[in-house]
Amino acid sequence: MVRVGIIGGSGYTGGELLRLLLSHPEVEVVQVTSREYVGEYVFRIHSNLRGVTNLKFDKPDLSKTISLCDLVFMSTPHGVSSKLTPKLLEAGLKVIDLSADFRLKNPEDYPKWYGWNHPAPDLLKKAVYGVPELYREKIRNAQLIACPGCMAVVTILALAPVIRENLIHREHIVADVKIGSSGAGAKPSASTHHAERFGVVRPYKPAGHRHTAEVEQELSLIANTEVKVSMSAHAVNIVRGILTTVHSFLVKKVDTPAVWKAFRSFYQNEPFIRLVRDRKGLYRLPDPKVVVGSNFCDLGFEIDNHTGRLVILGAIDNLVKGAAGIAVQNMNILLGFDEKTGLGQTALHPI
Amino acid sequence: MVRVGIIGGSGYTGGELLRLLLSHPEVEVVQVTSREYVGEYVFRIHSNLRGVTNLKFDKPDLSKTISLCDLVFMSTPHGVSSKLTPKLLEAGLKVIDLSADFRLKNPEDYPKWYGWNHPAPDLLKKAVYGVPELYREKIRNAQLIACPGCMAVVTILALAPVIRENLIHREHIVADVKIGSSGAGAKPSASTHHAERFGVVRPYKPAGHRHTAEVEQELSLIANTEVKVSMSAHAVNIVRGILTTVHSFLVKKVDTPAVWKAFRSFYQNEPFIRLVRDRKGLYRLPDPKVVVGSNFCDLGFEIDNHTGRLVILGAIDNLVKGAAGIAVQNMNILLGFDEKTGLGQTALHPI
Amino acid sequence: MVRVGIIGGSGYTGGELLRLLLSHPEVEVVQVTSREYVGEYVFRIHSNLRGVTNLKFDKPDLSKTISLCDLVFMSTPHGVSSKLTPKLLEAGLKVIDLSADFRLKNPEDYPKWYGWNHPAPDLLKKAVYGVPELYREKIRNAQLIACPGCMAVVTILALAPVIRENLIHREHIVADVKIGSSGAGAKPSASTHHAERFGVVRPYKPAGHRHTAEVEQELSLIANTEVKVSMSAHAVNIVRGILTTVHSFLVKKVDTPAVWKAFRSFYQNEPFIRLVRDRKGLYRLPDPKVVVGSNFCDLGFEIDNHTGRLVILGAIDNLVKGAAGIAVQNMNILLGFDEKTGLGQTALHPI
Amino acid sequence: MVRVGIIGGSGYTGGELLRLLLSHPEVEVVQVTSREYVGEYVFRIHSNLRGVTNLKFDKPDLSKTISLCDLVFMSTPHGVSSKLTPKLLEAGLKVIDLSADFRLKNPEDYPKWYGWNHPAPDLLKKAVYGVPELYREKIRNAQLIACPGCMAVVTILALAPVIRENLIHREHIVADVKIGSSGAGAKPSASTHHAERFGVVRPYKPAGHRHTAEVEQELSLIANTEVKVSMSAHAVNIVRGILTTVHSFLVKKVDTPAVWKAFRSFYQNEPFIRLVRDRKGLYRLPDPKVVVGSNFCDLGFEIDNHTGRLVILGAIDNLVKGAAGIAVQNMNILLGFDEKTGLGQTALHPI
Repeated sequence: MVRVGIIGGSGYTGGELLRLLLSHPEVEVVQVTSREYVGEYVFRIHSNLRGVTNLKFDKPDLSKTISLCDLVFMSTPHGVSSKLTPKLLEAGLKVIDLSADFRLKNPEDYPKWYGWNHPAPDLLKKAVYGVPELYREKIRNAQLIACPGCMAVVTILALAPVIRENLIHREHIVADVKIGSSGAGAKPSASTHHAERFGVVRPYKPAGHRHTAEVEQELSLIANTEVKVSMSAHAVNIVRGILTTVHSFLVKKVDTPAVWKAFRSFYQNEPFIRLVRDRKGLYRLPDPKVVVGSNFCDLGFEIDNHTGRLVILGAIDNLVKGAAGIAVQNMNILLGFDEKTGLGQTALHPI
Repeated sequence: MVRVGIIGGSGYTGGELLRLLLSHPEVEVVQVTSREYVGEYVFRIHSNLRGVTNLKFDKPDLSKTISLCDLVFMSTPHGVSSKLTPKLLEAGLKVIDLSADFRLKNPEDYPKWYGWNHPAPDLLKKAVYGVPELYREKIRNAQLIACPGCMAVVTILALAPVIRENLIHREHIVADVKIGSSGAGAKPSASTHHAERFGVVRPYKPAGHRHTAEVEQELSLIANTEVKVSMSAHAVNIVRGILTTVHSFLVKKVDTPAVWKAFRSFYQNEPFIRLVRDRKGLYRLPDPKVVVGSNFCDLGFEIDNHTGRLVILGAIDNLVKGAAGIAVQNMNILLGFDEKTGLGQTALHPI
Repeated sequence: MVRVGIIGGSGYTGGELLRLLLSHPEVEVVQVTSREYVGEYVFRIHSNLRGVTNLKFDKPDLSKTISLCDLVFMSTPHGVSSKLTPKLLEAGLKVIDLSADFRLKNPEDYPKWYGWNHPAPDLLKKAVYGVPELYREKIRNAQLIACPGCMAVVTILALAPVIRENLIHREHIVADVKIGSSGAGAKPSASTHHAERFGVVRPYKPAGHRHTAEVEQELSLIANTEVKVSMSAHAVNIVRGILTTVHSFLVKKVDTPAVWKAFRSFYQNEPFIRLVRDRKGLYRLPDPKVVVGSNFCDLGFEIDNHTGRLVILGAIDNLVKGAAGIAVQNMNILLGFDEKTGLGQTALHPI
Repeated sequence: MVRVGIIGGSGYTGGELLRLLLSHPEVEVVQVTSREYVGEYVFRIHSNLRGVTNLKFDKPDLSKTISLCDLVFMSTPHGVSSKLTPKLLEAGLKVIDLSADFRLKNPEDYPKWYGWNHPAPDLLKKAVYGVPELYREKIRNAQLIACPGCMAVVTILALAPVIRENLIHREHIVADVKIGSSGAGAKPSASTHHAERFGVVRPYKPAGHRHTAEVEQELSLIANTEVKVSMSAHAVNIVRGILTTVHSFLVKKVDTPAVWKAFRSFYQNEPFIRLVRDRKGLYRLPDPKVVVGSNFCDLGFEIDNHTGRLVILGAIDNLVKGAAGIAVQNMNILLGFDEKTGLGQTALHPI
């Protein structure tokens, strides 16, 4: 059994890591830390774990982590991991970071998008961006994996095939993203107060969302030239789930099979990508409702001949494929397990 | 008191017309028809009207309508009004049509977008497209008013100022629309079954939505040249409300005050347009949550300097400004009443 | 125009008072205070009032209130009004208190149910419990009105007729109450965080709810002997609305018309009570969904012959008939206006 | 591998059986029938199973079922299983029935509660009521198991310990039940239309719910005397989950530890019962939100000393512990597997 730890385990990402790791047959959760809930049973905070585990939150203590763990998940607020991770790596541990601290390759992007200077810029090159569909081989040999942002990963996966195949204009790409309230984290605020958050279609970040940086970084690498993406984020009346609606314009008239082919060839044999484009049925296109709880990323598309537009739809559970699930998938690859281990939970329907 | 009738009063639009007209001080509802509920109290179907009215549904009977009414609201399924309205007009009645039957000026657009040939193409020219912010003067003298589609009106109002001012490229305009379940009407189906419809972010019409035709017609008239709009419709987990997120690209670098000016000058003194763009607050940009029940259309915007994009946001209650409210507003203008009469109900918050 | 003020106007009850009072034809809102938002436009907090009013929050200042107002609504946290109200009364103002501070007649009930000693016990006798259906005549001549608790008023109205008619056992009365999130007020907390509050059926107060005290006080007065009520409060996934399900046991076998008669005779001519008990229809019994935004209290019942039980159902909008609406109704009576003035807003359906 | 079939697999219970059985290591689903969707992939109907199975719906054909299966789940509308099951039993198959057809022991209860005469009254004695917490030993040797109604099982489990210990009065027991929309099945209707069903607290069956019959049957057996239960069913704004709030009156003054003891001793070592009664935390009492997707039944209670009441709370996922989960639990016992096999999926939080 590989001994794993979770630094910062009281948030929603931490809870979701626990849900997945506690039933993972190849690892043992030996430590989960929290500043706020030291000594408390984790099931008091993550109530779904009642009867599942008697683990308690441990005080953050790096030397203890180093002595206990082989691999650590960093589930800390942005800006924390970049300070702690260097020490963990020095001590020989593997680190899977769920924060934004090692996602961007260019150190100058940190002051630009996050407002702070990166304390360990050399590590940025070393970190592997944790999207298995793009970097599976690098992940196998990584010591540090930077898991993608939730809106970023689904938008990247939606666009990667058509960017690689040069099917769309690289300017005028719009990603209109809709996300549930769990994406805002576990800390209450006026904007997440049920009476204020219920029933909204709130355009909380029409421009300038920080996940834009990752999306452009990765798509530019695929395109081998600069790609710009116009992202807008909306809060909708669900708890879990993201739908990204990518609006792009075709460089030439292509038909449905040609786009299909781009997606099929890119995602052939991918265990967690489902191509969803049926002629009938309630869920003939991606909808986060049917991925909740699973690690699937559902992708589909529609050609709008009227305006030469290609609409690509992507749906994930933001806490699974957008956070803890992709982290476990990365861990499986890194540790040489079957990539699907511990990720077989079927989504619930209806929910 | 002007005597008004409602043809097809058992749907959500019919119920909303009743809510507004029954408390309107200048008109009397003398007839409301329904094929399905003849003889039934309207409050059995529109339960919010219990204790408000003892009106009953009448059998559809055009000659009775002609003898009873001065003005008729057509709240019938698409394709019905175009058959009945000519007779009402001949009899000298005023008609305010809430269906799509007289919205499009070009008869050829009906087979193209709706799949049927228009039976009274000559009336299309005569009909006034019922958006007071565009056609107030024509509405005053109209005999036939074609109320806009719910997604269409909010998208047109969002784009009209910047189209008139030539601020954006006329190609690559995207309208990403999110709508509540009342937009699907009162008839149950698999797609509106609560267990299937709850919690969705369903891209039910990524391309080819029929409201596109109206939007392009009206914006092209404003631009005096062809404007194309890429519209996508999503179902979200609310009952009432629409948010349209318009993604457009600026023809040149402009600043916020310049865009403000375009909106301010276009909508100066408009009683039902609110420009919403605050520096702080939960509702600093349009959100349908705070217009529910009111006739307001909230408009706001954000400039995305990163990609030269202008994001415009528009929020309405689809049953009010998107249907019954704008119909009553049109009636007020047509009959020479104060435009706000009967439309003063304040939205509820929180809801 | 009567000059009215609102002390504590930034909460949901304050916002709802503003919604109702700003369109009331007989009063003028001359002051609305808030400790937190001094100088801020009220529409920044109550976003539904944007475009409706340019009123700003004023600093709490009792002498200013006394000089400006004829009548004051106290919309303050429990424990505040009992300190301020004596001074307002001394200065000759009328006070309508929406907090719990003057609801209970027996001073000893305050330490017992609220945990503090009442600072002005003599005023408790003077205060009129503000349920017009019980105390209309006293309200006319009151100087101080104590508006009822939201769960209390709907439970009292549900039980009053059958208590008066001695139809049920006075022990073993259960009120199982379901309430929306607006009942918890505007202040964010862990329990109101959308991701935690969405989708719950949370038994947050299975026993010992403080509204029990009012319910028992009023029902005991009607019964002229002690009545005990077992109340349980549940949070459900809505924002506005309360359903109280009262389970009681009949003292003898009675039939439906007999119970009908008790309700009809008690609520004859009441403008805001609707008796709802249809043989068919989706809303054949009370449901808060169809009262949202209105001042109606819907009452219905069903006899369970199997166990000799009488189930009484009551539905209100907790912010209207449960708070601001009943406060305005009380004001109308007190000031000699038509009782329905300013309360004619029809509920929305669907919503 | 035991070969299992599902008769009537297109509803929500059928979908949930598939979710659980397809990942069950000891059984193989060899047939799933549907009258409506013959030849269709099951994932078109149960969209969560896309990528999980390529099984198709088979035509109902009893002789094929008999030749293919060792054990059959009947997931048919009430009244169907009682006709088919006798033939399956004759052919030596085991049957686990999820409908109501074999739940009641007294044949006369069928005309009384369901409105039809039972065609195979002799089998009623043979059928084991499928609540493992009550009948584990009998289930081991059963050929026919009648799974309980969803509201029945949670209400029985809430009451069983205190009925056995004689802690409460056997008259005046009230079960106030709140249930999500999936409980109404997969067939659309006016009452399940999203715009009408969203946001309700609808008392759809205040008296006379058919699950009352099972509850009284089982509690009377435990009490060894007649027990009557007053059940009321409410629809609330969720898809999955039931909360039952049982209001009962104590025969004598007992304290919390005494009630604890009754529950602890009754449910000692039960793998799917969690006793939930914390001093703090958001989920200190049962709430369906935290059991969604799991087979847990959460039970808790509160003593109301004011009225001598014992409030017992029970929460389940109506499709799991209330239907498919308990069916699989029964199957595990019957076939000699570890009772928890295939039921280890952790609930999701937040959701």
